[in-house]
Amino acid sequence: MSFKLFCTRAIASHIGVGSRIGFDATSSLWLKAGYATKTINLTSTTYPNTHRNPDFAKVSNSDVLFFRSIVGDNQVLTDDLDAYNEDWMRKYKGQSKVVLKPKTTEQISQLLRYCNQHKLAVVPQGGNTGLVGGSVPVFDEIVISIANMNKVRSFDEASGMFKADAGVILENADGYLAEHDHIFPLDLGAKGSCFIGGNVATNAGGLRLLRYGSLHGSVLGLEAVLPDGTIYDSMHSLRKDNTGYDLKQLFIGSEGTIGIITGVSILCPARPKSVNVAFLGLESYEQVQETFKKARNELCEVLSAFEFMDRGSQVFASRFLKMAHPLSPDDENEVPEYPFYVLIEVAGSKKEHDDEKLESFLESVMEDGTVADGVVSQDESQLRTLWKWRESVSEASTIDGGVYKYDVSLPLPKMYSLVETVRKQLGERQLMSQEDTGMPVVDAIGYGHVGDGNLHLNVCVREYNKKVETALEPFVYEQVQKERGSISAEHGLGFQKKHYIQYSKSPVEIQMIKDLKKHYDPNGIMNPYKYI
Amino acid sequence: MSFKLFCTRAIASHIGVGSRIGFDATSSLWLKAGYATKTINLTSTTYPNTHRNPDFAKVSNSDVLFFRSIVGDNQVLTDDLDAYNEDWMRKYKGQSKVVLKPKTTEQISQLLRYCNQHKLAVVPQGGNTGLVGGSVPVFDEIVISIANMNKVRSFDEASGMFKADAGVILENADGYLAEHDHIFPLDLGAKGSCFIGGNVATNAGGLRLLRYGSLHGSVLGLEAVLPDGTIYDSMHSLRKDNTGYDLKQLFIGSEGTIGIITGVSILCPARPKSVNVAFLGLESYEQVQETFKKARNELCEVLSAFEFMDRGSQVFASRFLKMAHPLSPDDENEVPEYPFYVLIEVAGSKKEHDDEKLESFLESVMEDGTVADGVVSQDESQLRTLWKWRESVSEASTIDGGVYKYDVSLPLPKMYSLVETVRKQLGERQLMSQEDTGMPVVDAIGYGHVGDGNLHLNVCVREYNKKVETALEPFVYEQVQKERGSISAEHGLGFQKKHYIQYSKSPVEIQMIKDLKKHYDPNGIMNPYKYI
Repeated sequence: MSFKLFCTRAIASHIGVGSRIGFDATSSLWLKAGYATKTINLTSTTYPNTHRNPDFAKVSNSDVLFFRSIVGDNQVLTDDLDAYNEDWMRKYKGQSKVVLKPKTTEQISQLLRYCNQHKLAVVPQGGNTGLVGGSVPVFDEIVISIANMNKVRSFDEASGMFKADAGVILENADGYLAEHDHIFPLDLGAKGSCFIGGNVATNAGGLRLLRYGSLHGSVLGLEAVLPDGTIYDSMHSLRKDNTGYDLKQLFIGSEGTIGIITGVSILCPARPKSVNVAFLGLESYEQVQETFKKARNELCEVLSAFEFMDRGSQVFASRFLKMAHPLSPDDENEVPEYPFYVLIEVAGSKKEHDDEKLESFLESVMEDGTVADGVVSQDESQLRTLWKWRESVSEASTIDGGVYKYDVSLPLPKMYSLVETVRKQLGERQLMSQEDTGMPVVDAIGYGHVGDGNLHLNVCVREYNKKVETALEPFVYEQVQKERGSISAEHGLGFQKKHYIQYSKSPVEIQMIKDLKKHYDPNGIMNPYKYI
Repeated sequence: MSFKLFCTRAIASHIGVGSRIGFDATSSLWLKAGYATKTINLTSTTYPNTHRNPDFAKVSNSDVLFFRSIVGDNQVLTDDLDAYNEDWMRKYKGQSKVVLKPKTTEQISQLLRYCNQHKLAVVPQGGNTGLVGGSVPVFDEIVISIANMNKVRSFDEASGMFKADAGVILENADGYLAEHDHIFPLDLGAKGSCFIGGNVATNAGGLRLLRYGSLHGSVLGLEAVLPDGTIYDSMHSLRKDNTGYDLKQLFIGSEGTIGIITGVSILCPARPKSVNVAFLGLESYEQVQETFKKARNELCEVLSAFEFMDRGSQVFASRFLKMAHPLSPDDENEVPEYPFYVLIEVAGSKKEHDDEKLESFLESVMEDGTVADGVVSQDESQLRTLWKWRESVSEASTIDGGVYKYDVSLPLPKMYSLVETVRKQLGERQLMSQEDTGMPVVDAIGYGHVGDGNLHLNVCVREYNKKVETALEPFVYEQVQKERGSISAEHGLGFQKKHYIQYSKSPVEIQMIKDLKKHYDPNGIMNPYKYI
């Protein structure tokens, strides 16, 4: 049996050779949602039960004078601070009066020491692309932006060791590495805006995790400033170091609550010379799992992504992309009837070998009936087109008005049942209909990184609706808890999920996390009202 | 140019198809060393400046009665405790009067809570294969052995998630996984004796780190008992979980100082279907680096080990193995004149592809003169033989009497210069000669994991000698500090390196480590006199 080649004939006019669709800091995505308007309500108004901590001082003129003496007049901003107060989703808005833009780790140390002594609350800010309101103030916290710390420090081609300031934009880091035939071991939609320091602070997962593992493995050293101004410097070039607790690990995923990351040392793999993508149609979620199992076994070292999408997500993508679906190139605007779709990417050092492995794998899963249909990209442009059918789902989900997004981890066998359970719940409460525009919910769709057990559940709505919210929360979190999943696979806790951590963590774990927060930040000045 | 095939003709009678040479708990390796005899001196005698902490209680009869009530009479040992008091190197010997062998996490919790309340000091013990005296008592600490906790809990073939008790022997874990076409992401010489809980507690590196990364990346969840008896349970099956500080990371490499690991959840890759090995001769250390750089780039996803050895290490291996060297099969007992040797292993899912990649890589590095000579194994037996020339160096180093072993990490370009510096130092002090048997030192040799920047420096001696020790310490540590290396790449701190941590860590880091120790173990009962 030979495998279909992907033909872009029908869609050639729609798709150019652009970069992947991703988050864009200037995107109007969330403006469509009923609860996000051009004018964002203050977080304090939207969440009246969250109160400013009266222990914190308010910024005085003498504070501002001190800040200017440290970072210079131009790097203390007091006007037009919306870009720093508002989050990327346009859901949260703080009231900070001062933004500081230090240029060195030493300056951050002096700023934090002062803030800690004077009980001035602080929000560390990177590229401000977070999705849980973690990088903007809730009230009048001082914003410390690391945007001015954006230099590559060093790269060693022999070992792949890359060292840079925390404010280097992810795409720039990857571009720098590409020139040296290396790859940043992390990739995500927001790469054009997000900072590598923010990636580490939020333990970003993204699209390369299946292949290159998590930042807990690839980050080899960090430089960070603790709340009291102490500079923690472990900017090693060492893959192995067994002398004491691995302190840097605490900062990976700490979301700015125990310090500000100022430097990152990370191990970067050689850049694959060849990349190819297959796009498959499957009859059941069991077959998705079976295909993944076989792909891990047969594609082994060249497997670099294994993404799945349900049919609903492809219907939204189709409406958004306005192009023929890869598996029905002749029927524009028609999505085939397969309930599940899988995108497999292979990447390696020798194209012929990768192609041969991929083709032999595909023939085997089609012959034994695990996969019903599929196509393989023939060039870079087709590869990007296939990826669009996965990557556009996020943005496409808002096409009817808005979306409730849940980013959860679940054990693989249970992953998709969450979507089915939520659909059932919304159906029983008579909140969901694709046809009846009087219903608030259009559809609940699921897609995500099978390799990471990471499901994106999008509840696509026509309007923001309290009944929908009540039907979803804490229902979704309860379902995740039942399966010992995580209520935040990638995005973190931030402001949005602070009060939901008990669905993922036991009382013992929560207490341990609180104890550590207190240990490092006894005055609680770092990114307050969030995380824990 | 075509590449030599490895011919085992001359050595076929010496080498059988056995498992790799490794540590063996019953080995007499260290007995040869002048400072390790059949009767081991008490640690308290060898190190008279280390004093028992008078705050700790001594074990009373009523304590023993309590222990029996928890774990049962048979699991409280009070006689013949040498195997628990003496370390594998036969260098340290404690004076514990009680060994406890709990069978459940709940029992460990009750034991620790009691010990903490009664200020009874405790040593957690796994397979007792450590190399820094970390797993045996210094004075009369109670030994808590996890040998009875040795069950596989679960394995999920779809995701590769493996969960097991901490007392499972590494080789058994890997054997279990082999039956399911998977591989434990860690391999080391002591695998027949060491426990996976001990591997995690010491952050073992081993032979698969280059390919599969460190335990900080592959361990996905842990179960551990804190000093106060609290059970910390994060035995997740999740690759992604961004809800709070990644607490488990603190236990990875904590060497039993803040708790006892009782369960491990770890991500296991699909087992490669094909493995091959090349053994090369090179003219300089620069060429070793250049070969590594090219191997990372060209072998990319199939590269699974890159080990180097200097000529001295091959001379010792040759005397020990008593077989013809792979690069001079016709001259038995003769090691070729190349100053450096490299072993490259490739592992992948398709043998023809791997072989083709390896051969094309080897042809290219030989054609451009980076590599001077080399052979490739043709079957499993030859592969094992080639590995012996790397793996036997450790044991071979003791052939003249004993060895001072240093396990350090250094930035790649500086790695070998440590060996040269030490040779110079020993030469200048007139302590080293291969011919003059009146000299204490025979040779200083270097070998190790290039991929991990991990150098094993072995100073091979005819006798234990204070002058040699004075010439080496703190000299070696000072050299490592100069290059911002680590004085313990793999083995940990234990008792041996407790007082040397300042050569690898800054005062800030040391203070942070001490603070964490106090945070979790305020009474200091966990593995005292060690680590920090």
